[in-house]
Amino acid sequence: MGLRVVGLGPGDRLDMTGRVRLALAEAEIICGYDGYLELLAGLFPEKPRLGGGMGREVERCRSALGLAAEGRRVALVCGGDAGVYGMAGLVCQLAPEYPGVELEVAPGVPAAQAGAALLGAPLGHDFAGISLSDRLTPWPVIENRLRAAAAADFVLCLHNPASRARRDHLRRAAGVLLEILPPETLCGWARRIGRPGQSAGLLRLNELGDFPADMWTLVFVGARTTREIRGRMVTPRGYDLRGC
Amino acid sequence: MGLRVVGLGPGDRLDMTGRVRLALAEAEIICGYDGYLELLAGLFPEKPRLGGGMGREVERCRSALGLAAEGRRVALVCGGDAGVYGMAGLVCQLAPEYPGVELEVAPGVPAAQAGAALLGAPLGHDFAGISLSDRLTPWPVIENRLRAAAAADFVLCLHNPASRARRDHLRRAAGVLLEILPPETLCGWARRIGRPGQSAGLLRLNELGDFPADMWTLVFVGARTTREIRGRMVTPRGYDLRGC
Repeated sequence: MGLRVVGLGPGDRLDMTGRVRLALAEAEIICGYDGYLELLAGLFPEKPRLGGGMGREVERCRSALGLAAEGRRVALVCGGDAGVYGMAGLVCQLAPEYPGVELEVAPGVPAAQAGAALLGAPLGHDFAGISLSDRLTPWPVIENRLRAAAAADFVLCLHNPASRARRDHLRRAAGVLLEILPPETLCGWARRIGRPGQSAGLLRLNELGDFPADMWTLVFVGARTTREIRGRMVTPRGYDLRGC
Repeated sequence: MGLRVVGLGPGDRLDMTGRVRLALAEAEIICGYDGYLELLAGLFPEKPRLGGGMGREVERCRSALGLAAEGRRVALVCGGDAGVYGMAGLVCQLAPEYPGVELEVAPGVPAAQAGAALLGAPLGHDFAGISLSDRLTPWPVIENRLRAAAAADFVLCLHNPASRARRDHLRRAAGVLLEILPPETLCGWARRIGRPGQSAGLLRLNELGDFPADMWTLVFVGARTTREIRGRMVTPRGYDLRGC
């Protein structure tokens, strides 16, 4: 009896951890957003699944907790890491209503790190992750975080840069950043990480507003030290390379 | 012929990804800091290792690139993710001197996400990672990032809060944060994540300065919405729980 909230990683099953695979193997039922259950096609096909669409997160977490409270071993799957814009927080919030359910969070490779690996090493020094979705966070809060992080020279990883309902958020974010950062600031993007059609590339901050991001895209904005090295986006940690 | 920079994850081999395991299996030689090679004890014991101590990072990356340039298949291992304060950036910087070496970065579970999973879900909304080591970054830059991130209400994950040479950095950082955040701000710590003696706990910001952190400790500082729920540190994403 218990609920494990597990992060599947970016999408390719090769990036799944052993702990997550074990949690799936031991689960009696696997719950999650349909888009993540798809990633498990062919894996443990005998296990019942409980899916659901976008926007039904609270309902889904309650179902998973409810099944665990009934004595089932449940795995609730998330994309990337379970704690980064994932379901771990929501499950922890709801858990007190389901006393006796043992809760465990199994971490995964976050989308940010998987995207960064495709580009080189953009997150090689202090970085900040910001979601551009204003569904749950007021836009002025998001703008304030963009300004503060850019001014303090963090590398930025922008999650949810666009969706069908939010077509201009990346343009607005780029405008805010251009108030502070030079237009030639190196940026990068990664799309459909670990899935068919995976792609990634570099651009400059003054091109970012026009970039056709979608809900499968992650965007990286470099710090002052970030630079392009042979087509890769790299933020040096600051090691002295002389004489070695 | 090629070099793969791989992130082993936090320490427990269960948190290693399949891609990283495959890279180790296919490597002819495994390079890395001695403390990370130790994590591989008993795994592929037939493979030669090239280790080295702290502070020899540039030399180690050059050795790995040099072996790859000679035609060997090399895996360079990092703790956590290879791109988060890891060797991916340094390798990308040095790579142009070793033309012809194919380079690949295999991401891993970062220490931050593994520590967060132990505590609950502290990184459930926008967060910033800051290293308190001033070996490669001037302290005023670090202080500036602490202030900016706290003022913009990011959750903070503080890396390298202390070492033998830096005993008071966490105290100084806590002092800076207390200029901005309330003393009762929820904080958390995780130590020796995924290794023998793993532990984690919660405290308040006004207790953080006296906390005996070491180089195996990660520290989390909550945002305004972060709260303790049944002993867990949780930063809600903002889902509406009413009526569901």
